[in-house]
Amino acid sequence: MKRILILGGGFGGVYAAIYLQKYLKKAIKNKEVELCLVNKDNYFVYQPMLPEVVSGSVGIFDTVSPIQRLVPKTKLYIREIEKIDLENKQVVLVPQFSHAATPLSYDHLVLALGNITDFKDNAGMHEHALPFKNLADAITIRNRIIDVVAAAANESDPSRRQQLLTFVIGGGGFSGTEVCAEVNDFAKKICEEYSTITPEDVRVILVHKKERLFDHELPESLGNYAGKLLAKRGVDIRFGRKLIAATPEGAVLDDQSRVLSKTVISSVPSSPNPLIADLNVAKTHGKVNTNSFMQVEGYDNIWALGDCAMIPLVKTNDFCPPTAQFAIREAKQLAKNIKAELKGGQKQSFDFSAIGMLGALGHRSAVAELFGVFKFSGFLAWVMWRFIYWLKLPGIDRKIKVAVYWFLDLFIPTESVQLKLSPSQGIAQLHFEPGEVIFNEGDTGDFLYIITQGEVEVYNKQGHLANLGPGQYFGEMALLREAKRNATIKCTKATNVLALSKKDFGTLVANFKELRQNFQETDKLRSAK
Amino acid sequence: MKRILILGGGFGGVYAAIYLQKYLKKAIKNKEVELCLVNKDNYFVYQPMLPEVVSGSVGIFDTVSPIQRLVPKTKLYIREIEKIDLENKQVVLVPQFSHAATPLSYDHLVLALGNITDFKDNAGMHEHALPFKNLADAITIRNRIIDVVAAAANESDPSRRQQLLTFVIGGGGFSGTEVCAEVNDFAKKICEEYSTITPEDVRVILVHKKERLFDHELPESLGNYAGKLLAKRGVDIRFGRKLIAATPEGAVLDDQSRVLSKTVISSVPSSPNPLIADLNVAKTHGKVNTNSFMQVEGYDNIWALGDCAMIPLVKTNDFCPPTAQFAIREAKQLAKNIKAELKGGQKQSFDFSAIGMLGALGHRSAVAELFGVFKFSGFLAWVMWRFIYWLKLPGIDRKIKVAVYWFLDLFIPTESVQLKLSPSQGIAQLHFEPGEVIFNEGDTGDFLYIITQGEVEVYNKQGHLANLGPGQYFGEMALLREAKRNATIKCTKATNVLALSKKDFGTLVANFKELRQNFQETDKLRSAK
Repeated sequence: MKRILILGGGFGGVYAAIYLQKYLKKAIKNKEVELCLVNKDNYFVYQPMLPEVVSGSVGIFDTVSPIQRLVPKTKLYIREIEKIDLENKQVVLVPQFSHAATPLSYDHLVLALGNITDFKDNAGMHEHALPFKNLADAITIRNRIIDVVAAAANESDPSRRQQLLTFVIGGGGFSGTEVCAEVNDFAKKICEEYSTITPEDVRVILVHKKERLFDHELPESLGNYAGKLLAKRGVDIRFGRKLIAATPEGAVLDDQSRVLSKTVISSVPSSPNPLIADLNVAKTHGKVNTNSFMQVEGYDNIWALGDCAMIPLVKTNDFCPPTAQFAIREAKQLAKNIKAELKGGQKQSFDFSAIGMLGALGHRSAVAELFGVFKFSGFLAWVMWRFIYWLKLPGIDRKIKVAVYWFLDLFIPTESVQLKLSPSQGIAQLHFEPGEVIFNEGDTGDFLYIITQGEVEVYNKQGHLANLGPGQYFGEMALLREAKRNATIKCTKATNVLALSKKDFGTLVANFKELRQNFQETDKLRSAK
Repeated sequence: MKRILILGGGFGGVYAAIYLQKYLKKAIKNKEVELCLVNKDNYFVYQPMLPEVVSGSVGIFDTVSPIQRLVPKTKLYIREIEKIDLENKQVVLVPQFSHAATPLSYDHLVLALGNITDFKDNAGMHEHALPFKNLADAITIRNRIIDVVAAAANESDPSRRQQLLTFVIGGGGFSGTEVCAEVNDFAKKICEEYSTITPEDVRVILVHKKERLFDHELPESLGNYAGKLLAKRGVDIRFGRKLIAATPEGAVLDDQSRVLSKTVISSVPSSPNPLIADLNVAKTHGKVNTNSFMQVEGYDNIWALGDCAMIPLVKTNDFCPPTAQFAIREAKQLAKNIKAELKGGQKQSFDFSAIGMLGALGHRSAVAELFGVFKFSGFLAWVMWRFIYWLKLPGIDRKIKVAVYWFLDLFIPTESVQLKLSPSQGIAQLHFEPGEVIFNEGDTGDFLYIITQGEVEVYNKQGHLANLGPGQYFGEMALLREAKRNATIKCTKATNVLALSKKDFGTLVANFKELRQNFQETDKLRSAK
């Protein structure tokens, strides 16, 4: 029996499994071929509808489909991948419900691992900016909006209220612009539930490094239309600017201007999946090089498609763009080519040109381009957008549910229910810019901080107490004694700290002798001061 | 302006706000009275439908309503409460988006804090048993069922597969029995998606300390009917037994028998909210004593209702039971009595007798008793159950959505989408029974463990290496060197450990000098051995 192992459950991976099931039906039935798919979630996310989860225009579950139902004949592993081991022709999965890792050998391997959001070089982005990539991200953004609006409604200090009602979004491509439109609509709508704030208090800032929106996805006229439309709805678009840092108090742009905000969202940086980065094969811009049959350079039995692959387009002498439209077509050809390898037959080069592009702008409006010629905008484009994506939704159940939801949505007001599953935080990493205060004298003691980079100044009403640097910690005194902070901590440089919650700190100190002694000694020294 | 401060957003708190808004409409409008409500979630959970979330028979959001929409004239604080300070007539909220705690003073205080699930005396229950109380619990149970079924489908070892497909539920009252029925239905249904396992492999064990189900909620005939019905569907009911401990590998019953399982659910122990426990007022069984007007003993301006209150029923010389039916009626009388205190008028004693009791049993069946006389069971009771709870659902939007969902549910097969929001674990606490193995030589190193209680034996193929006790740690060697475990750890006594994930361990060790040195020294010593 030959095993075809697919890694990844996005458009590329799931559609590859769908087409392989179809083309190798008999071989799978006769147990000549086994089809396996590994993904960390048990569902496939229908990305184009994700922005609507933020505002609740579609039900949370309606953007996702259980993978097993889409590919009933495929053996599904809902697991994280530890390592792809090309030498031994196996993939190792991380342990689940035990401590033993599972190795899975393969005859054919399909890489469909997509890319990930990564904020690497930008200070504090990883710690404080919210990514927008998967279902959990969409729900997290939704929860944050509800939280800050509720907090703003009870906030008496006008500058803090403004900070709570300010939303910064980085990136003016499809996903950034769509999220921006949904955030703007949703935040304004839920403001109406409170008597102390109005929708006009909401400030949404879209930061885009180019001079117009959708600059590499849609023609200039539509990009301009989208920009004007969002501006009319109150979005403050900063063209030619980039987000370069984020802190607990806001965002820093590349002209060094700071925007006070509790909600910084970035849709920009996409990095290769770390599993692909660790793979020892030829790559271009972090993507795996393939031939026109989608075989990885140097291998007959390793294939790649979707956002993690660099697939040449023979006719246009270009490479496949990272879109769902292409991934689905790639999957079909890839399935045919694997069949040809297994059963004999002619492999064929992949070729396809995009039918059209659509971008939603919230508020029942959108922009669209079809066949590179027809351009639409406004309500008509929005109806088309909904209809096309609805047609492409996999599974009839989903189609019915989404249709019903959209229909009800015309009559039922926007929801503001939050879905919070886990209050646990573990150890948080925080970034602060020079001059920012981590906490003030008199504040409630809620965290212990360990400096990993930078420098802070400790002072109180009596004056300067100390400067602390990497490896040193602060904040333990208020935690050990359940008291208020007795000093202020201000960053003198850009500073990264680890924050340990009061609860986790208590657990560690109570049970870990060495740590307890260490903290008590430091406490004695510092109290004496 | 007088402030009425309600603590808690369950049936008692939300309905108190609804009735206070109604009876004090004019005073609120004229700003003579301000109504505030504090709750940690922004939604009200409709508890009776929670078991259906486990199986997905209702949409996740359909069991919850945004509190602000139910009580538009009430100032809502979505916050945790730090302290109730009766002396200074204020309630202190924990900081949010800042480090400053918020004090809220009150003229009238309404305690509606309910109770919490607490596993206190039972070893390992807190760490390994899943509670069933709120929305997050229901979703967690759902996710666990999907996880273990998927893992079982790929498991080749029959005993491990059986362990994954075994579910243990403690408690045969309303919530335990309803959850048991839903778990049984849902686990069996999703088994059908896999070709390697069948619904018959699922084993659901319901542990109940009395001799029949619903023993203090419904008459004997209905309790017996429910027991027979579940037994017919394959549930293994252990009457006269109690869960006394849980470990990562299963449950221990009070006859010392062990059941291997990865899913132990407990609906039994309800403890007072810690805020109530800390409150210095007269209490009975942890509940606040009130007079028949629902005023807390010794105070004119502090009120209590719902599950956290001990409210006397004058006519029957009994106390109010902790049910939604009673909480809603208590809220109405309480609102009238507060109005009487504020505006003058006669306070009245609370009195009410229950109309009926209903318990759902999954699979379109239920049991019911009306007016203490009429008894129903089966499909008719189920239709009545759905209809009555649907009528009581607050808000017309919710009513429509739930009706549509239930209607679609007749045609669309059960979903198995998981909703996982945060992979972060922080520091986990684990409990093991004597003889259990924490990890085996050769396993993948994924956690560092610190012993907080008990004793473990360390050994490898060559023989015994050491015994470790409280305050000592193990598992750091594989983490420091990214290697496999080089010894097996077996508990010689009942043992509690803290587990720090590889990632958190790495973060701490990399940044915390003292800790790093400490681990490296121990590592040197142990390697030399």
